[in-house]
Amino acid sequence: MSFLENINNPQDLKKLKKEELPELAKEIRKEIVDTVSKTGGHLAPSLGAVDLTLSLHYVYDSPKDKIIWDVGHQAYAHKILTGRKDKFKTLRTHNGVSGFPKRSESEHDAFGVGHSSTSISAALGFAAARDLKNEDYRVVAVIGDGAMTGGLAFEGLQNAGHLKKDMLVILNDNEMFISQKVGAIAGYFAKLLTIGSVKKAEDKVMKMVSRFHSFGSPFGKLIKRVKVMLFPGMLFEEMGFTYIGPVQGHDITKLTEILENIKGMKGPVLLHVITKKGKGYAPAEENPTQFHGVGKFNAQTGEIAKSGAVTYTEVFADTLVRLANGNDKIVAITAAMPEGTGLDKFAKNFPERYFDVGIAEEHAVTFAAALAAGGMSPVCAIYSTFMQRAIDNIIHDVALQNLPVIFALDRAGLVGEDGGTHHGAFDFSYLKYIPNLIIMAPADENELQHMLKTAFNSNKPCALRYPRGAGTGAALDMSPSVLQIGKAKVLSEGSDVCILGIGNQVENCVKAAEMLEDKKIKATVVNMRFLKPLDEDLVKELLAKHKKFVTVEDNVLTGGFGESIKSLLCGTGAVVESIGLPDKFVEHGSPNVLREKYGLTAKNIAETALNILKKE
Amino acid sequence: MSFLENINNPQDLKKLKKEELPELAKEIRKEIVDTVSKTGGHLAPSLGAVDLTLSLHYVYDSPKDKIIWDVGHQAYAHKILTGRKDKFKTLRTHNGVSGFPKRSESEHDAFGVGHSSTSISAALGFAAARDLKNEDYRVVAVIGDGAMTGGLAFEGLQNAGHLKKDMLVILNDNEMFISQKVGAIAGYFAKLLTIGSVKKAEDKVMKMVSRFHSFGSPFGKLIKRVKVMLFPGMLFEEMGFTYIGPVQGHDITKLTEILENIKGMKGPVLLHVITKKGKGYAPAEENPTQFHGVGKFNAQTGEIAKSGAVTYTEVFADTLVRLANGNDKIVAITAAMPEGTGLDKFAKNFPERYFDVGIAEEHAVTFAAALAAGGMSPVCAIYSTFMQRAIDNIIHDVALQNLPVIFALDRAGLVGEDGGTHHGAFDFSYLKYIPNLIIMAPADENELQHMLKTAFNSNKPCALRYPRGAGTGAALDMSPSVLQIGKAKVLSEGSDVCILGIGNQVENCVKAAEMLEDKKIKATVVNMRFLKPLDEDLVKELLAKHKKFVTVEDNVLTGGFGESIKSLLCGTGAVVESIGLPDKFVEHGSPNVLREKYGLTAKNIAETALNILKKE
Repeated sequence: MSFLENINNPQDLKKLKKEELPELAKEIRKEIVDTVSKTGGHLAPSLGAVDLTLSLHYVYDSPKDKIIWDVGHQAYAHKILTGRKDKFKTLRTHNGVSGFPKRSESEHDAFGVGHSSTSISAALGFAAARDLKNEDYRVVAVIGDGAMTGGLAFEGLQNAGHLKKDMLVILNDNEMFISQKVGAIAGYFAKLLTIGSVKKAEDKVMKMVSRFHSFGSPFGKLIKRVKVMLFPGMLFEEMGFTYIGPVQGHDITKLTEILENIKGMKGPVLLHVITKKGKGYAPAEENPTQFHGVGKFNAQTGEIAKSGAVTYTEVFADTLVRLANGNDKIVAITAAMPEGTGLDKFAKNFPERYFDVGIAEEHAVTFAAALAAGGMSPVCAIYSTFMQRAIDNIIHDVALQNLPVIFALDRAGLVGEDGGTHHGAFDFSYLKYIPNLIIMAPADENELQHMLKTAFNSNKPCALRYPRGAGTGAALDMSPSVLQIGKAKVLSEGSDVCILGIGNQVENCVKAAEMLEDKKIKATVVNMRFLKPLDEDLVKELLAKHKKFVTVEDNVLTGGFGESIKSLLCGTGAVVESIGLPDKFVEHGSPNVLREKYGLTAKNIAETALNILKKE
Repeated sequence: MSFLENINNPQDLKKLKKEELPELAKEIRKEIVDTVSKTGGHLAPSLGAVDLTLSLHYVYDSPKDKIIWDVGHQAYAHKILTGRKDKFKTLRTHNGVSGFPKRSESEHDAFGVGHSSTSISAALGFAAARDLKNEDYRVVAVIGDGAMTGGLAFEGLQNAGHLKKDMLVILNDNEMFISQKVGAIAGYFAKLLTIGSVKKAEDKVMKMVSRFHSFGSPFGKLIKRVKVMLFPGMLFEEMGFTYIGPVQGHDITKLTEILENIKGMKGPVLLHVITKKGKGYAPAEENPTQFHGVGKFNAQTGEIAKSGAVTYTEVFADTLVRLANGNDKIVAITAAMPEGTGLDKFAKNFPERYFDVGIAEEHAVTFAAALAAGGMSPVCAIYSTFMQRAIDNIIHDVALQNLPVIFALDRAGLVGEDGGTHHGAFDFSYLKYIPNLIIMAPADENELQHMLKTAFNSNKPCALRYPRGAGTGAALDMSPSVLQIGKAKVLSEGSDVCILGIGNQVENCVKAAEMLEDKKIKATVVNMRFLKPLDEDLVKELLAKHKKFVTVEDNVLTGGFGESIKSLLCGTGAVVESIGLPDKFVEHGSPNVLREKYGLTAKNIAETALNILKKE
């Protein structure tokens, strides 16, 4: 008989004795490891937060109290404890439990998330709403040390320190950023750990909280003043927070007691908790980066299933290293994603020319702009969805000044299981209207290398977007060559219908043409290559031979590639049908399921072509 | 014979004696007041920075050394000192000197700017490029206390503190944010001012710098440690900066000496300088907010020329107050623009429901999202151009969760004299592809009030964009009413050509129809009202009667309204011509000059209609 069997919601949890929580934690960890080994997911962060999650739900009263997760990749235990235990096996599968907190999924998910550094702002919003409505609940934000490097977190801290609302921010410090030596904040956190030994701090906390009631009196103020000098956490204290910590994040009993003690404190409080990524599962403890976001693995051995296929990321990384060997002006910038973007390879080869700026996409782009102004050739590698954070910097600091910065947008299009917060569904649309910017999307991994070379060669602001995961298996040319900017490539010449594909959808277009050929329909297939400048001349030439066009992209149709083509061909008599993502937030699910559902398949392209041929 | 007469570049400045600088400062101030009284511009910030600017150019060696201004609204003295003295009278006029630093204008403008909080990131980029290229120059960022509240500044500080590049950040603290009590950082700066008296700090600085050479030795480290405890500026020290200050920013001689002393210091240094906005011109000193960005005024009396016309901003502000009187869930959020957005009126009426979060647009939006999740009805009033900072927050925190936040985007379309960094030229394009979002643009100030009411009534995420300055003079209905979402309004019915206008261009469309009428051409004119959802049904209905369409908007055409219409009508046989802003960064100039140049006039609309009528 397990504890977990009887836990269906946080109320059930409160029936346990504090001493029983560690056993429950073990059961939850097993559940998480078993499920994620089959579904893939954010294993190490979720394992690291199990004990903290149990303590939080034991002490606080969700959904009345609002527990707000930052990024949300650590929330699996939260999901299991809040009514999603039985469904947890469906994690990240289509129509199954989402990998991130989601308001539409549960009333316990107070604020949906997926991107970093939003939790403090969100917690403050709830606290302000609560006070305006004279309601009575508590608000807790849980934010990692990495997420704390984002400017948004700072903006939230400083507004919270100003408004003085009652709220708790838990800094879930798993020392990721300390070990990676990213940013001054990491150094600061490291100092906190050495200055205040965990044991000493915990003792102090227990004694201190009883004295907090005297605060507000002159004597209380004096104590606080002295404390600021002698106690770590001054940075947060200066921002208006009461800093408590660092405390151990895996001793559930102690942590629960601390939370009980500080629950009643007034004003904004920051509790600094030290946890270990991957806690309780040896392979993840040993390789927290590999097990941060992981695919299927063998739960017994920790062996991660490998796909042999070459990925776009790998080709990007290899090509960049190759080009940088011959060009010492090339520098590379990541916002805390060295492995994900493939820049770890660049870092190993050119440590001096590599910059990991932390989860700070805005800074990454403006910093890159100035590197270019200072004479370097920067490439700024940021996932498509995270680049949404830095659009103003692209517009205002790069494009307006026409500075040669290259944006390498990995994870463009459908990313699959991470879902609505992570699809790179919008980049064509959020980039297209930016003057001076060249926008490319390779049809395969071979073209990616040529496009990267083309981008460096152009000496202009360029965005290069390519999908997650395996390439098409295209043969890689011996060396990257320069493409003509703004020129599309005709792959096959037909006469019945013209299929214009861009990016990874070109492959489907070629297959669709083969299907059509079986029906004696001759299709022209074009790899558009450049969204901007668009090869308008070619499209107009094609118009001489075709009246029926199909466009295909894995961006939303609104403001995307298809709209550009329709707009161009409006009034010419041409009939254009566009295939792309719909005007909605696409849910999570395997890429194949989603492609099928949203028609990003050769079959749908062929059928669409047949349909418009029937018209008129 | 004035000093200024002989100053044509920073080298000339260095020929003066330090003691002569204050006299030159007076002359420059007079030049600035005279010019801005005729051209309008950012007077108070530029006057406050004259002494600092002189000291900087006296000590540093621009353009070899890079002086990087944050926001750039304080750079008039810099412009006058760096070869633009004679042209300064053309400030902010078309083809004249830009109101902001601009790389294309001068080699002394190391990094173009207009938006806030970029300077530290930019300075770090230059410093990193310099070190990689083994070049030898100094980099100085000048950032205001307001700009320091932006998350981007924090991201820059923390990466700079980590990389330890030699660079100087000057915190130009004019206490704007202290007096307005915005954010915890303001409180922190205020504390610095009281803890360290200016005089004492200056003395300490002079003594301290001589000792800096001992740093690195254990003894040096000890001194530094003690200093951190006893000296203010710990927040910056914790971030890896050497903090110096506060020092007086209007004693040029002293300031110059301090800069000379710290010029050789290693690593990132933050110099905290206290200045007064409007310094040296009494009316601006007394009313720094009114004279922050000001129109024409009488230089003798300080009387600001007033236009009697009612502005969109005023109607927005009045309507919001009116609606909030009847609905206590309405809350309003500004990012440090209470006067510009008109929210100062709301603040006076409902101080509890008003939030100025500082220059922190990202936080503003996420905070608003959570206020909505907590049951409030937030309106987030941010200029169109500054909202570019928070697009991810709109997508990820508001729209994805379908939370009812209203975005009031003032300064949409052409803003005129502030130029390329400030035009609201992109909002249709950066909003259009966001699922769940309703996007409206009122044809006049009367419709603005209805749209604001409609937005609150919709209980959905809404963006409402409207232009800078005077409305059309439309009569204001007694009370705001609810419009049908997604429904356009036919203003006149013709048959020859159909003119689809949106936002403030509807007025031009009506006038164009009148011009066409004179030529016996009957035009249908439609006020589209909603970019999203677009009234596709109406457009298709109109297609039964029209084959020629003109669309008009003051957004860039790429990804904008015209593209939506063309896309919709592609393949129908309709001919559509679109008028809007071109795919480039529009320069500065009076709105009339720019409208004329880019064809946003009734005359051009009429001519365009005539042209497409001639076709075929």
